[in-house]
Amino acid sequence: MVDREGSAARIERDIETLAGPKYTRSDEAIRRYAYTPEYRATLDYFTAALRDLGFDVSEDPVGTLVARNRPPGEKVFGVGSHCDSNRNGGKYDGTMGVVTALEVCRLNAELGLGLPLQLVSFLEEEGSGFGQMLLGSRIMLQRVTEDELRDSFRAVDDGRPFWEHAADAGYEPERWRESIHVLDDLSGWIEMHIEQARVLQDTQNRIGIVTAIAGYVHADITVEGRADHAGATPMDFRLDPAPVAAECILELERLARTEGKGTVGTVGEIEVEPSLINVVPARARFSLDIRGTDEESFRAVAAEIAAFAEQAAARRGMTAGFRQRQTLAPTPMDERIVGALEGAATETGEPFMLMPSGAAHDTMCVAERVPSAMVFVPCKDGISHSPLEDASPADAALAAEIILNAIRSL
Amino acid sequence: MVDREGSAARIERDIETLAGPKYTRSDEAIRRYAYTPEYRATLDYFTAALRDLGFDVSEDPVGTLVARNRPPGEKVFGVGSHCDSNRNGGKYDGTMGVVTALEVCRLNAELGLGLPLQLVSFLEEEGSGFGQMLLGSRIMLQRVTEDELRDSFRAVDDGRPFWEHAADAGYEPERWRESIHVLDDLSGWIEMHIEQARVLQDTQNRIGIVTAIAGYVHADITVEGRADHAGATPMDFRLDPAPVAAECILELERLARTEGKGTVGTVGEIEVEPSLINVVPARARFSLDIRGTDEESFRAVAAEIAAFAEQAAARRGMTAGFRQRQTLAPTPMDERIVGALEGAATETGEPFMLMPSGAAHDTMCVAERVPSAMVFVPCKDGISHSPLEDASPADAALAAEIILNAIRSL
Repeated sequence: MVDREGSAARIERDIETLAGPKYTRSDEAIRRYAYTPEYRATLDYFTAALRDLGFDVSEDPVGTLVARNRPPGEKVFGVGSHCDSNRNGGKYDGTMGVVTALEVCRLNAELGLGLPLQLVSFLEEEGSGFGQMLLGSRIMLQRVTEDELRDSFRAVDDGRPFWEHAADAGYEPERWRESIHVLDDLSGWIEMHIEQARVLQDTQNRIGIVTAIAGYVHADITVEGRADHAGATPMDFRLDPAPVAAECILELERLARTEGKGTVGTVGEIEVEPSLINVVPARARFSLDIRGTDEESFRAVAAEIAAFAEQAAARRGMTAGFRQRQTLAPTPMDERIVGALEGAATETGEPFMLMPSGAAHDTMCVAERVPSAMVFVPCKDGISHSPLEDASPADAALAAEIILNAIRSL
Repeated sequence: MVDREGSAARIERDIETLAGPKYTRSDEAIRRYAYTPEYRATLDYFTAALRDLGFDVSEDPVGTLVARNRPPGEKVFGVGSHCDSNRNGGKYDGTMGVVTALEVCRLNAELGLGLPLQLVSFLEEEGSGFGQMLLGSRIMLQRVTEDELRDSFRAVDDGRPFWEHAADAGYEPERWRESIHVLDDLSGWIEMHIEQARVLQDTQNRIGIVTAIAGYVHADITVEGRADHAGATPMDFRLDPAPVAAECILELERLARTEGKGTVGTVGEIEVEPSLINVVPARARFSLDIRGTDEESFRAVAAEIAAFAEQAAARRGMTAGFRQRQTLAPTPMDERIVGALEGAATETGEPFMLMPSGAAHDTMCVAERVPSAMVFVPCKDGISHSPLEDASPADAALAAEIILNAIRSL
C-alpha cells in the first residue's frame, strides 16, 4: 500500500537538503541550535512542507514548532522529534525523526487516510545553544524555573541568558508556562529516532520498538590510599587504591550482567593521583553510569557497588566513598501504543525487535502527560553525535509506515 | 667507645645549619642545586669542617667535592652522598649522608684511628639544576656524552647548557672525563641515605643495610576498545577496555607477590579516553613500574604482565600493546662490605635489617668501579622529597658508628 521507495526518496531529499550550508553553522558537521539563522531556516523548511499538506503551523512561546491538521480542541495523535543538533553532530540525530514525522503526515495525505495528526519539533534537545539537554520539552513540562530561564541558562556562545535570546528572536518567554498546552489535545505520541548504539545493526533488525527509556544513577567512587615510593615500598607495606578500583570495575561489570533486565554499568572516567609512574597512587576516583529500565534493578546495582567498594577498600586497610551526582527514574512506554507498533511492524514482514532506550529523549517529558512510545532505526556502527553518523532513509521510510499504521490501528 | 650522644648533637647541628637561609633558595623548603650561591656555601661548609680535620679538599673538573686524609696514590676508603636537594625538598635527602660521612671522618680523628678516608659529595643527584638525575656520578662513570654536557643538558632556570654554567662557576667542563680519577684510590665505598620509604619505621629497625639497588622496567600498556554510548549499549555489545585494565592491575599485583624476592609492581598512571561518565572508553592506558634486585624476577613479571594483557584483551575481542619506556639492571652491593656492616651493626645491639634499595642512588654508578654498599636510616612515614621530610640525628650517629667500625674491620 505504501510506496516505500518513494517514501525513502523523500526522506533522503529532506535529510540531504537540511545538511546543506544554509542549515548548519559548521563546514565539517551539522551544528544547529535555537535562535540561529540556520535553525530558523530549518523550521521554515518544515513549516513550508507542512503547510503544503494543509497543516496549521505555529510556534509556542519559546519556539517549539507545532503543526496540526485539526483545529484546537480536537484530538490529534502526536509525532515528531527535535531538529537541533550537537555542536559537532551528524545529519540524522533528531532531524531524521522530524523528517520521518513529516513523512507520516505526507503518507496520511497521499493515502487519503485523514488521520488527525500533530507534528512537534522540540527546541534544544541537545543543549548546544544553552548547555541544557531536553530544554524545550522540560520547559513544556514545567521542569524548569523562571529564574533558570531568565538568568541561569546562558548561551554557550555569548553568555547571555536564554530569556534575552528568546525575546530577541521574537518569542515571548514570559509566556513559557503556556507551552504545556501543546500537549492538550494529544491522544498519543510517537517519536522516531536513530538508535545511537549498535544493537539493531548487530542483531540485523531494521526497527526497534522502545518499551521503556532507561533511568540512571550517575555517581563517583573515591578510594583513599597513601602515596608511596613505587620502588622502595614492598607490596605488603602499601595502601594502593588502584587494585581496589580495579576490583570495583570488575564487580560492576559482574553485577550488571547478573542483574540482567537490560541493566548496564559503565566506568567511563578513571583518575589516579598524583599520576606518576614511580609513585603508588594516593587516591583513585572513578565514575559510575548505571542504567536500566527496571528501576529496582539499577538502583540495586548502585547500592551493591557502593557497599562492595567500601568492603574492598576496608579489606586492604583503606576507605572508599560513594557520591551520587544525579539520578533519574526510568520512563515506561505506553503498552497499548507499543502493541500497536508491534502489530504494524509484524505486518511489514521486516525484522524488528522490542528494546529499551538507554539514551534520554524528549519523549521522557511528553510521557508524563501523554501515552507515548518511540521507534528506533539502526545507525551505522552505533556512531552518533558525530559527522560520521549514518542511517538509512529506507529504514526511516519503514518506520514512517509502521508509525502510520500503528496510529490507524489505535 | 663512641659518644653517640655527642655524635648525634654534631650531626643535628650540621643539618640545622645547612637548613638555614644561607643554604636554600626557598623559604618553604630546601632548594639547592649546582652552581648556585647556596650550593657553593654548602660545599664551603663541608670544606672548612674537613680542613679542620686535616683533610685535603678539592673539587673535580665539574664541581664534585673530594676530601682525603692521604696523598693521591694511597688507598683510601670512600664515604659520602650528595648535598643538592629537590626543588621542594627536605633537610635530610642527600645532605644527611654527607653529614654522616663527615661524622665518620670526625670520629676517625677523635678516636685516633687513623683510617685512610676519602669523602665525596656528588653533584646534582636530584636533577634540580639540569633535569638530569645522578648527573655528577654519571659524569664520573662516563655515562654521558660530551654533546649532552655541551648542549642537551640545560638549566631548568634559564635554559642555558650545563657546560656554560659549569664554566661560569669556574670549573673546567672540557676536562669532565678526568672526573673518573676521583675513584682511582678507593678500596671501597659506603653511602648513607635516608630510606625514603617506611619499611624501617614500620618494622622498628634503626638501620638498613642495603644488599642491592633495584633495577626496573618502566613501561605502558594500552588497551584498544571502542567508544559506545554507556546507556544505549548492552553489556554484551561492548568492547570496553576498562575491565581489561582492571584485570591487569590485579594480575600485576598477584605476579609481583608470587614472584617474591622483593619484586614490586606498581600502576601509578591510569588514563581512559574520552573520559566521560556516559561513554564506554575507547582506550585505556596504564603505566607499569616493575622493580627488584633480582633481575630475572622483575623481567619475568614484566614479560608475564605483557602477555597477560594481550590475552585478557583478546578474550574480550580487543587488543593490548606493551611499550617499554626505560629499563635498568639492578646493582648488587659488595658482599664483603655488607658483611662488615652487618658485623658492626650487630655489635651495637641496635635493631637493623638487610634490605634492598628500591630507589636509585649515586652508589649505582660508583659500584661499577669500586666495591660498594649503602646504609639506610628511617625517615618518618616514608615521606621524602618534601619539606615534611624528617629523620633522626641519633639514627645517623648510629650509622656513622657502624660505617666507621665496618671500615675498621675491612
